Formats: sequence, C-alpha cells, structure tokens
Amino acid sequence: MKKTPVKGTNDYLPREAALRDYLKKTILDIYTENGFEHIYTPAIEDAENLDKSEGGENLSLIFNILKRGEKLDKLIEEGVHAGNVKDLYDLGLRYDLTLPLSRYFANNRNELIMPMKCIQIDRVYRAERPQKGRLREFIQCDIDILGNESADAEVELILTTAKALEAIGLKNFKVRINDRRLLHAVLQDAGFKPDEMESVCITFDKMDKVGLDGVCGELEEKGFAAETIAAFKDMLSGADLSLEYIKGKLADKTPAENLERVIADVDELSSGKVQTEFDISLVRGQGYYTGTVFEVVSDDFSGSVAGGGRYDKLIGKFLNEDIPAVGFSIGFERIFAILTDGGIEIKDDKRKKKIAVLYGEEDFVNAARRAEVLRGDGYIASLFARPKKTGKFIDNLEKHGFDGFVIVGEKDDIQLFNN
Amino acid sequence: MKKTPVKGTNDYLPREAALRDYLKKTILDIYTENGFEHIYTPAIEDAENLDKSEGGENLSLIFNILKRGEKLDKLIEEGVHAGNVKDLYDLGLRYDLTLPLSRYFANNRNELIMPMKCIQIDRVYRAERPQKGRLREFIQCDIDILGNESADAEVELILTTAKALEAIGLKNFKVRINDRRLLHAVLQDAGFKPDEMESVCITFDKMDKVGLDGVCGELEEKGFAAETIAAFKDMLSGADLSLEYIKGKLADKTPAENLERVIADVDELSSGKVQTEFDISLVRGQGYYTGTVFEVVSDDFSGSVAGGGRYDKLIGKFLNEDIPAVGFSIGFERIFAILTDGGIEIKDDKRKKKIAVLYGEEDFVNAARRAEVLRGDGYIASLFARPKKTGKFIDNLEKHGFDGFVIVGEKDDIQLFNN
Repeated sequence: MKKTPVKGTNDYLPREAALRDYLKKTILDIYTENGFEHIYTPAIEDAENLDKSEGGENLSLIFNILKRGEKLDKLIEEGVHAGNVKDLYDLGLRYDLTLPLSRYFANNRNELIMPMKCIQIDRVYRAERPQKGRLREFIQCDIDILGNESADAEVELILTTAKALEAIGLKNFKVRINDRRLLHAVLQDAGFKPDEMESVCITFDKMDKVGLDGVCGELEEKGFAAETIAAFKDMLSGADLSLEYIKGKLADKTPAENLERVIADVDELSSGKVQTEFDISLVRGQGYYTGTVFEVVSDDFSGSVAGGGRYDKLIGKFLNEDIPAVGFSIGFERIFAILTDGGIEIKDDKRKKKIAVLYGEEDFVNAARRAEVLRGDGYIASLFARPKKTGKFIDNLEKHGFDGFVIVGEKDDIQLFNN
Repeated sequence: MKKTPVKGTNDYLPREAALRDYLKKTILDIYTENGFEHIYTPAIEDAENLDKSEGGENLSLIFNILKRGEKLDKLIEEGVHAGNVKDLYDLGLRYDLTLPLSRYFANNRNELIMPMKCIQIDRVYRAERPQKGRLREFIQCDIDILGNESADAEVELILTTAKALEAIGLKNFKVRINDRRLLHAVLQDAGFKPDEMESVCITFDKMDKVGLDGVCGELEEKGFAAETIAAFKDMLSGADLSLEYIKGKLADKTPAENLERVIADVDELSSGKVQTEFDISLVRGQGYYTGTVFEVVSDDFSGSVAGGGRYDKLIGKFLNEDIPAVGFSIGFERIFAILTDGGIEIKDDKRKKKIAVLYGEEDFVNAARRAEVLRGDGYIASLFARPKKTGKFIDNLEKHGFDGFVIVGEKDDIQLFNN
C-alpha cells in the first residue's frame, strides 16, 4: 500500500492543522460579523454542469468520477472509443466554489433572503500536473453577494476582505481594481472586435510583467492588425492610464463612474486605510466575469493574495433570468504558505495552553482525575503513560507544541516550558 | 444545467450550516480540551489503497476517479473490456477516515508524538443507491488513539465521546461494549471454524432484533452444522449473557478482564454517570476490528449515535510492523438529523445577535458606519438596501434568523424581534 498522499494533496500535521483552523476561524469570524452567512455545497457536481460552465482553462482540469454498476458494464460492453469518453463519467469534483454557488442559488432561491450574502470556505479540486506548489486539492475561501447590482456590493466585499486580511496580520496591501466593461471599451475603441477580446485580454493581463511594448509585441505575434495595435498603443502610451484619463476617452461613462464610487466609498469608510488602485491592465482569469474585477496585492509578498469580480450572467445559466452577483476570494493556501514560512507573525491570544499529564503504571485513574481538574482550569490536558526515557519524551513534548507537563504523584504542579 | 445537487448530496441553507458549524465546534472543542489533536487527510486516495483495504461492503461503494490525458487516451485506444476496468481509474474518494488515517500515520510517523491522539471531522463518500436518508457525501467525526495497546485508550475514547455527546445535549445514553476476541472465542467454543466467523457474526449482529432463536434459525438456513448451532444455543441460552458468565466459560480470560477494567474505570471516572453495558452480540460492521468494539445508544432515539473499536492490524498494511490503534466515531449526520428535527434542545449561548441595517437610497455610507458601530458592540450586522415593501422584508428577516433591525435615519436604535 502507498504511504504517501496522492500527488498534489497534503497530509496536515497537528501543528499545520491548528494553523489552518486558526486561519479559517479568523476569516470566518470577520465574514460572519459583517453579515455574511456560511453555507455548504457538495464537492461532487453533475458532470454536465461542470463541463458547460465558463471555467476557462479549469475545464481541462476536472477530476471526473467513473460511472458505476450496470451503467458502466453496459457502456463497456457496447464499446468505449474516443467519441464516447464523456459517457464514462456522470459526476465530477468541483474546480471552484462559484459554479456550485450559482447552482445552489438557483435551487434554493425561495429559501434565501435577498440579496444573499454568503461564505464558502471549502475544498476544490484541479487535476494539475503534479509539480511543486501546485495543489490538486485545496481550500478556497469566498464571500459572494447575489442579487445586488449596485456598487454597494463591491464596497462591502472589499471592506470585509480587507478586514479579514488585517485580522490575519497582513500589512502593506492594496486593492487593484478594474472593470471588464471598461477594458473591453478601451480595446473596442482601439479597433479590436468582440470575438478577439479574450485573446487580447490574455495578452493584456501581462502588462505589469512585460509593459506596454511587450504587450504590443505579443499582439503582433498573434497576428492582430498593425493599425489596431497602433491605435491601442497610442491610446494607452504617453498619457497616464488613470481612471480619469480613460473615462475622458470613452463614450459610456457608467463603468468608470461606478469604479469612482467604489474607490471613494472604500476610502471614506476605511478612513483612508484601505488603499485602492485603478489598473486598466487588471484582467483576472475567469471567463464568467462581466463587470468589476479586483485583487489584493501586498508589497511584502509577490503575486496576489485575494481576487474576485462580478459575474452577472453565470446564475442565468441555471435560471430563466440573470441575477447580479459578485464575489471575493482570499487565497487561503497562499496565506497558509506565508504563515507557515513565518512571513506573518501570528497572534492567537485565545489559544489554550496544552499540558501533558504523565503517569506511571497503574496510575491511570489518578492521572485522568488530575487531567480533568486541569481542563476545568482552562487547560488542554492530554494523558500519556510515562515512557522509560522520560527526559527525552518531555523534550519531545515541547517540540510538539505542548506548553508544559505534570508527572502525577511526582511533579503535580504544572511545569511550564520557557519558564 | 441541473439545479439540484447530485443525488445523495445536500445543499445546506444558512440556518442548517450554522447548526452544522455549532455541532462541529461543540464536538471539536471537547475533543481538543481532552488532548486530541485535529489533523487533515485528503479526500482523494490512491485507488489501490482503497481497493486493498478491509472496508467490508464499503469497497463496493467507492467513487472511482477516471484517469486523465494521455493515460486515458492510450487505454481507450488499446481497448477497454470487462477484464481491465480497474485500469480506467487511479484515484478514488475515501469511504471512511480510518484508512486515510492509517496511511497518514505510516507516512508521518517520525513527525508525530506517540501515542498519537487525533481528531478528524471531515467528508467521506459512498456510492450508495440514492434513497431517502442514504447520503453519498457525509461527515464523519472520529477520534483515534494510535500506539497504545493498553485499555487506557478505550477508557479515554469512551469518556471523551461521552463528554462530547453530553455537550451536544444528548441524554439517557449508554455505551454498549464487547470484544471481537471474546465473541470469536464464544463462537469457536461452540464449534464454529475461523473461516465461518464472518458469516456467523453477520447473523449474530441481529441478536437484539430477532433474539437467540431468530439467530439460530438464520444459522440453520445458512447451513451450519446442527450440533454446532445447538452447542452455541446451549452456551448462550438459559443462563444470562453477562461478562462474568461468559468469562467463566472461556479458557483465555484476557479480553474479558480487559473489558472489566474498561467498564470499571469508565464508571469510576464518570462517577457512575456514563453507563456501560456488556453485550456479547455487539459486532459492529467493519472488517478491520480486532479487539474491543463499542457503540452508544440512547433510549430517546433508535439505532446508535456513535460507534468504534480497536483495529490493531490495519496500520501494519502500510508499515512492516503492527501498531495498536483504536477509534470512536460520532454519527455526525445522525445527530444533525436529531438536532434538525428538534429532538435535542440547543443551547448555544455564545451566539452573537444578528441585526439587519436597512438604508434608503444614497444612504449607504451612513448605514455602513452604523453597522460598524454595531459590530464594535458585539453584534453581527448585515447591510440591506431598504426594499419598497419594508414591512414584508422585516417579517422575512425574522424568519431567516435575524434578531432585530435598524432603519438608518428613521429607527436608529435596535428593534429586537420578540420584544
């Protein structure tokens, strides 16, 4: 039998699990206090729902679940070939929490208060090629507001996410923000056609890495018309790329005014503490985003630590009408990695002290009584039959996160480490 | 797209999720206080590990995950037939938490303190035929002690589980207890052969439903020798089936003495509050149990609400040596169903009051400020744009578990429901 976990999945040791629980609880408490409600959706979804969702490249990373029993037998008897591979599976593991949420909303609409503000902190699965840092089972940590088309929703999500990140101890972060409609308008004004948007956006997403010249170079390589690229370059170069500047260039002012309001409200309600930065080059990968997109970056760490956006058309795939929706997701595994590496100092002042209660042969009942008294006094108490090499065992206790010990009948008072 | 969750899985509404979180936290806090440590194992496991485990009938209920990419293409090209179905999948969803725990222990042994006392409260999957009450995705809630062969471990597990059940509010429960070795010895003394044990045990498991005559009838139907059944009946009928009686009948007194100690210690340490009851007919389904088995039943509810036992040979499948191990699992979904049905009164005195903050047009920033003050005062505060039918909306709030509301600029003091 194989001892190691499946590649891309992790066993979490007690100290790691404690850190994950602390992280989860810290975020969940802030989310809850701010009026979001925890919900649960299943990790297995209908295969067709997954395949027809707009998950972009995630669709090629779905773990599919084989059919069972007679259905499978019959299919194999009839013959499996390249043309009917899809008939082999009926279920799949979810690749994110947004698709299950959209289905959930459609299924439970009449039981929910509107707008619905919800929390999901749960596992998702992606069949990534196993490599360092790429997880195939990982936690996503989302808040969403469904049924509110106003920018109030964006402001709430940004402020609540910022509070959660502050509670974790993240510093020096800012919220980058854009609007897909603004981005599309800029690209359209330059002469790109609607069906070229996706490809152009993928290239444009690299703006902060390769700069405007790099972006234009890649657009040339992709074969876009030289004059369109020139118009695009002209539009963006020279002048600053501020929201005000771009707003002035465009006919429809609505998305820009919307962003201005989000930025102003976040600034006012956080007393200037939560910084926002408009960035026309911010794309965010998901195919289902329709409006605002945002992410959190910190000077202290590379990449983003949270991301989200508005997806007003996704729930419509399950219902006969569109429902406005917007979500923000904290990169749980990214933050966990930062905490594990000591990148953020953890201040868990509610942690109970953990005491080992050691006992000799035949002294179990006395030890259990002593442990119970310690628990009544607010300690975590764990019983251990005293091993022969008591000294070495006690050293070990400290390494494993115990705060002290008691030896029943010998050292009945708590012996704290670091004292 | 399909709106309903996959059959046998559930969407949990906010009030249900809150109940599940309360239940999970109540149990986890008790477990933790008693020295058990939370760990996480992946929900996906190597397919061979699952297939070779001793999961009894659960092995036929595994959700298998289809291979991907080139491996799948190659297999389909070569031809799939009844003889190589197993080649279609490389991974599977775990059907319990004990097999992943055994693998985890083998994989992380050097990083763990011994004996290891751990908690897992997590999802498992079984491809049950969809029918009422049979879940295909559900939570198991286990504590285990690995590396302790002494009955201390059983006593700790029973007392800790009893405390958790008490904390939930379960009353009138008792712990039924037996030992597989005792059961096998009784059956062997009667003349059953080792390879007949499993079949006999399955029948014997029905003792509390059909009585001794019913059990003997089924054994006859199964074709066991009449004289063996007669000896078995003679051994068990007439006289009581007490531990003392059976101990007297058997040559090896060890398992019986072991049980006597467990029963005595549990009685002493709980001051008689946790009742135990020896029952030679208690079997518990898992194939991997090797010693004590136990379950919790309550006069208030049918069936068992918790169950477990010793499995000293399972970890040895991953290591070159056997590691003594024993676990106790609370029936999370069973208890959740009892709580949902109102079978137990919930006393969650740490719950924060939830207040809706309603605001008119253009009043969002003021409302957000008011909400923040409420949060500072220890409330959960959730913002809502005031709908036209405010009265109906406020009625709805109460239905959805809100404790009160504020209308910014109109009713700025908290209006509590039920006041």
